Amino acid sequence: MENSVVMKFGGSSVETIEKMQKIAKRIIKKKETFKNVVVVVSAMGKTTNQLLEMAKQAAKYPSKREIDLLISTGEQVSIALLTMILNENDFEAVALTGFQAGIKTGGLHTKNKILDIDTTNIEKHLNQGKIAVVAGFQGLNDAGDITTLGRGGSDTTAVAIAAKLGCSAEIYTDVDGIYGVDPRLYPNAKKLDIISYEEMKEMAFLGAKVMEPRSIEIGHRYQVPIYVQSSIHEIEGTLIKEYTKVEEKSVTGLSISEKVMMVTIKNYPSYATDIAKLFIALAENEVNVDMISQTPTEIGFINLSFTAGADDLEAVDEVIEHIMSQYQNVEAVKNINVVKVSVVGTGMRTQSGVAAQLFKLLADNGIDFMLVTTSEISISYTIDKKLMKRAVEVISEKFGL
Amino acid sequence: MENSVVMKFGGSSVETIEKMQKIAKRIIKKKETFKNVVVVVSAMGKTTNQLLEMAKQAAKYPSKREIDLLISTGEQVSIALLTMILNENDFEAVALTGFQAGIKTGGLHTKNKILDIDTTNIEKHLNQGKIAVVAGFQGLNDAGDITTLGRGGSDTTAVAIAAKLGCSAEIYTDVDGIYGVDPRLYPNAKKLDIISYEEMKEMAFLGAKVMEPRSIEIGHRYQVPIYVQSSIHEIEGTLIKEYTKVEEKSVTGLSISEKVMMVTIKNYPSYATDIAKLFIALAENEVNVDMISQTPTEIGFINLSFTAGADDLEAVDEVIEHIMSQYQNVEAVKNINVVKVSVVGTGMRTQSGVAAQLFKLLADNGIDFMLVTTSEISISYTIDKKLMKRAVEVISEKFGL
Repeated sequence: MENSVVMKFGGSSVETIEKMQKIAKRIIKKKETFKNVVVVVSAMGKTTNQLLEMAKQAAKYPSKREIDLLISTGEQVSIALLTMILNENDFEAVALTGFQAGIKTGGLHTKNKILDIDTTNIEKHLNQGKIAVVAGFQGLNDAGDITTLGRGGSDTTAVAIAAKLGCSAEIYTDVDGIYGVDPRLYPNAKKLDIISYEEMKEMAFLGAKVMEPRSIEIGHRYQVPIYVQSSIHEIEGTLIKEYTKVEEKSVTGLSISEKVMMVTIKNYPSYATDIAKLFIALAENEVNVDMISQTPTEIGFINLSFTAGADDLEAVDEVIEHIMSQYQNVEAVKNINVVKVSVVGTGMRTQSGVAAQLFKLLADNGIDFMLVTTSEISISYTIDKKLMKRAVEVISEKFGL
Repeated sequence: MENSVVMKFGGSSVETIEKMQKIAKRIIKKKETFKNVVVVVSAMGKTTNQLLEMAKQAAKYPSKREIDLLISTGEQVSIALLTMILNENDFEAVALTGFQAGIKTGGLHTKNKILDIDTTNIEKHLNQGKIAVVAGFQGLNDAGDITTLGRGGSDTTAVAIAAKLGCSAEIYTDVDGIYGVDPRLYPNAKKLDIISYEEMKEMAFLGAKVMEPRSIEIGHRYQVPIYVQSSIHEIEGTLIKEYTKVEEKSVTGLSISEKVMMVTIKNYPSYATDIAKLFIALAENEVNVDMISQTPTEIGFINLSFTAGADDLEAVDEVIEHIMSQYQNVEAVKNINVVKVSVVGTGMRTQSGVAAQLFKLLADNGIDFMLVTTSEISISYTIDKKLMKRAVEVISEKFGL
């Protein structure tokens, strides 16, 4: 649709009626510039967590279909209230739940993916001059069940609607844009005007929490310009788009994952079946293994290290205990005092020597690293938690982040 | 469907997770006797009022379509949680919102009526052996909007589903059955084993709050046996069904409306157009006028009395002020110290003299009445609030209620 825009507001922007009244003003202002305005909102503040808490009280293993039904009420409440506020301000608006907005999903309950959006209903209301206020994070599957999209679901809803309407998505959030490195960790951090989909995705995967990788992936595929900006202050944010710099910086961003645990298993059999057994057990216990590294010790045995989320401690313990009961001499060491530092830049693809520069930089500054993994456009290290601040400073300074 | 039953639990029965766990036990027990169990639930405790409070904070005149969207989340939460509890107890259950249960409605938002129920989805789940947990009070209209059914909506949902499935409806409530007179007003009140649809409807219309007249109306039309019983204690309740006693008692029930206001307008013009003007103005101000009585004074003028809900005081004042500005000499007197006492019994139809007996009874006991209205099977009086207790006692004793 010509002259359209999708605005997305997260939970903290719609935490209270007062905050909704503030964003209503921004929406109304936007409606003066754009003919068609679609607004996607999340549940108010911590509502989703409160609902999940109720589910836990109801059942030890609450059925996932019903979890979706339960938590989808969160956005239903916020779209209804925000629409009332817009209507009260004489701007005709209509609240649409996921199924009313034509959002078709598939997959596992609580982790659905958007398969398609039938925007007929949204467009009908837009053509009547109304602001369409759509519930983020939810949809309907083929069986007619209400579903939710998992983490970052509202961003995904917003970008997917923008893709279907052929317009841009504006993501209003509690940070004021994308930074090369988290300003809370490095106060001199510079805000980026533009970042490419690819770099943004990599940073998101590596732990930068501004946006979920899935929504950027959809933006990338359908070339939806995504503008990330503050929901509070009216200042310039960061545009995520297809973007090739004339002369690329080798490193664009630095991201830190603090909630990391590193596990080292010594004297483990080196046969592929044994190694597979370990990682299958971890997967079955829903441990999200991130970095993996292994080195041979004596013939037939290896030392093996991996990282996982610190939240998975209990599940990891269970797996290790089980494994150790099956093999003799196997030793396991857990280290929860580590962080993962990741350096990202599409420039790494064409400029060699970035890894070498980084190794030297860390060595010169006495920062030992434990595990290293690399992708085409990133390098990640686990280092001791105590060295995090120093590492962030020297890398940010060196690469001007 | 053969061997089916619909159980309905109101807001106070599902107020907390603990209370839901208790009713889950009753549902499971019922499932041992019946092959197909449908459970209809309301929102938890005071949830609906809390959501309406939020709507009031959002807008002075919240859009009704969005009110429906907002308050319908209440039942969505309770069906999800109750279903989780049933599943946790190894009884397969499925939560269905109004639209998932095929409930089609029409009319004004917040006051919709059930037009039809497509029970295909409910029956599919029942045939799979599942307990179907359906959200009361809500449905979907032709435009695809979520709607609610207004007061007593969950009872209506339950009885309508029972009508479609051809089974009985069991209404679990915080009273333990239907009494000839409210036991809080008359401690010797007797619980009825059986009451006819007609008498129950009349009592409900006249202020007995156990069930809304609409649901009884549907029960009557489709001959659905409705069994009203305690949600807490497992004791015998009251069955509402088509029922003719061999020898009818003249009076079955006595109901009291305490929140009543009586208005008397003196020296009002007697022309139909003027009288119509008054009642149209009251209707436009959403005043629910109940009893009406008028007496001529001098030629061309009347004294006119009517009762309305005590909540309508402000709206009545507005209308009266407006009317008095148009007519000279008109006087208006409001009396909020009145109650309405209604005596009900299908026996009145065949047994003459009930009215006469009542008049004498009240006169003998010094109970003056102000307005009197009658229907085929009931007589209502307004009396001074101070005389209520006495009136209840003498009538209950006289007719053995």
